[in-house]
Amino acid sequence: MTRDDYERRMERAGRVAANVGLAGLIVTPGPDLAWLCGYRPTAETERLTALVIAAGRRPRLLVPVLEQPDAERAAGAGAMDVTGWRDGANPYNELAKWLDPQGRYGMSDATWAMHLLGLQRALPESAYGALTEVLPMLRAVKDVHEVERLAAAGAAADATYEAILGVRFAGRREHEVAADLARLLTEHGHSQVDFTVVGSGPNGANPHHEAGDRVIGDGDMVVLDFGGLKDGYGSDTTRTVHVGEPTAEERNVHDIVREAQQAAFEAVRPGVACQEIDRVARKVIKAAGYGEYFIHRTGHGIGVTTHEPPYMVEGEHLPLVPGMCFSIEPGIYLPGRFGVRIEDIVTCTESGGRRLNETAREMAVVS
Amino acid sequence: MTRDDYERRMERAGRVAANVGLAGLIVTPGPDLAWLCGYRPTAETERLTALVIAAGRRPRLLVPVLEQPDAERAAGAGAMDVTGWRDGANPYNELAKWLDPQGRYGMSDATWAMHLLGLQRALPESAYGALTEVLPMLRAVKDVHEVERLAAAGAAADATYEAILGVRFAGRREHEVAADLARLLTEHGHSQVDFTVVGSGPNGANPHHEAGDRVIGDGDMVVLDFGGLKDGYGSDTTRTVHVGEPTAEERNVHDIVREAQQAAFEAVRPGVACQEIDRVARKVIKAAGYGEYFIHRTGHGIGVTTHEPPYMVEGEHLPLVPGMCFSIEPGIYLPGRFGVRIEDIVTCTESGGRRLNETAREMAVVS
Repeated sequence: MTRDDYERRMERAGRVAANVGLAGLIVTPGPDLAWLCGYRPTAETERLTALVIAAGRRPRLLVPVLEQPDAERAAGAGAMDVTGWRDGANPYNELAKWLDPQGRYGMSDATWAMHLLGLQRALPESAYGALTEVLPMLRAVKDVHEVERLAAAGAAADATYEAILGVRFAGRREHEVAADLARLLTEHGHSQVDFTVVGSGPNGANPHHEAGDRVIGDGDMVVLDFGGLKDGYGSDTTRTVHVGEPTAEERNVHDIVREAQQAAFEAVRPGVACQEIDRVARKVIKAAGYGEYFIHRTGHGIGVTTHEPPYMVEGEHLPLVPGMCFSIEPGIYLPGRFGVRIEDIVTCTESGGRRLNETAREMAVVS
Repeated sequence: MTRDDYERRMERAGRVAANVGLAGLIVTPGPDLAWLCGYRPTAETERLTALVIAAGRRPRLLVPVLEQPDAERAAGAGAMDVTGWRDGANPYNELAKWLDPQGRYGMSDATWAMHLLGLQRALPESAYGALTEVLPMLRAVKDVHEVERLAAAGAAADATYEAILGVRFAGRREHEVAADLARLLTEHGHSQVDFTVVGSGPNGANPHHEAGDRVIGDGDMVVLDFGGLKDGYGSDTTRTVHVGEPTAEERNVHDIVREAQQAAFEAVRPGVACQEIDRVARKVIKAAGYGEYFIHRTGHGIGVTTHEPPYMVEGEHLPLVPGMCFSIEPGIYLPGRFGVRIEDIVTCTESGGRRLNETAREMAVVS
């Protein structure tokens, strides 16, 4: 990514903001800032750092003066003005000078509330909307280079899964298998491991269980959900394996989830509303009598973060567009017993969905 | 920390909020939430998790339903009601049901702007203030157990510094020494390393430089600023060392910073305004002719985070109170040449300051 690439991204962002009636965008440290201008400060703190983008104007970055040298080395720094503020000054008043006092701005989702409140106090007649709500499409449609990066991250996650099938499960603690997953992701090129879920037996019925002290036993279902960032783009895949031979009921639940995941995948094509992907998966699980045990949305977008728009959830009317990349991950969770989830990252193409995870979705038996 | 400890903290928080005219507090995942109720979710995401505390009412935690089992296992869960919300619902409308529509609430600083905006939309007549601004004292005064934890973290950082003096500097890259610091902090009991600054030569003149590819050379000044969390409490100390014998100027600048740090430390006593600590340090550096090169505040509080109120900065009128713990870290930064910073964590006691970092502040010569 060069200075010119970032300049184009910032120009486009200003333009699409103006198109929806925004005076501009205010972006603080995090994935949006890195994506727009290549600047990723070492920490997000109580000291305000903010990029202001407005159509037809050169972007401006306000930074604590002691971080200014770092900011000026960012790949996109040449395409914006960088201004430092010193401890003791009121950075909100500084930022306010660059803004339309009655303007409505899109603000990065994870901006600290204290910064938004400071700005609302400095400009009481200004208005704000969360970036993913006012411009859900800003980063949602990936260009070919981004899809390639996501595919490479997916391939690394797949290699991790193939390798984990060969490790010992029975008799080891969940967090030991989780450590194996983290090591394998790193070995396969991930610079950051975001999550390594190992949900064995009843723990698998808690979809956000990470990994604990439970010793995995023979006869356990084990949900494996892992991912992170490789070359700045995310991976996220889930497979549910079984230690030893599964029962007929376990096999049946797994088949239902697999069928739901397949049906949702086949529903992917340009123009289909995101909520439709969720509905298709949910319908299969409901028809099989497990509707009340599918307790989360079907998927989320992925890019420079592992969770971002578009969301495959009831109420999301955004149509799928070629280049969108997102998870399809239905699940069934039987409290106190076991859980099953199957997840691939999928990209929408002109002709339908393309999976970026390719490992077998049949239930693997591990030892 | 037991259920009862958390119950007392939440009760006190509700009481002090009412004392300053707040209807209550709204706290999302992060250090405040962990400190108040012991719940530390695995990730902070776009799905709202929020604790509502109001005087005289039982605290209530709203969580995504798929994280509810984790929340219910938190140490303070027995002292609050936990309610789950499902994907597709509007969590802001759910939260709004628990709030006074015209109330003013304190909100954790790092709450995502998208959550604050969602709540402002659900309750247009409600008002909010950042927690550290409306209740800067909430976590600022540590009890004896907390000071003990901070002292233990400080001792671990001191042991790290003693050990780093024995490693090779000349001919190695900054990030190699930074890796040594991280390893040593971990060996000395840190569960989390937050920063390992190795600023050699001109890089030392950039106070927020972390560590880069620069090869450290003979004759370099090297700023070492490192810390993290040990048993849930923070460490943060800085010493500036020299590779080989320093010049007279280098020695002089180092002496000035050391004198400023000592003067500020000696100014610590109950009742003194935080800004006074900053002024005392700044006066020494200004008198020596280096005022324009001291480009940051003198210090920040520390506790379950490594940066929190009280801030030792011009304009901060809060009086020091026994139990407050904060850094004193003046510095001089000569652009393109070198920097010097000396930092200890200090706690205010009835009789004055007590340092939680005890290593020699004279400039060490390394090889």
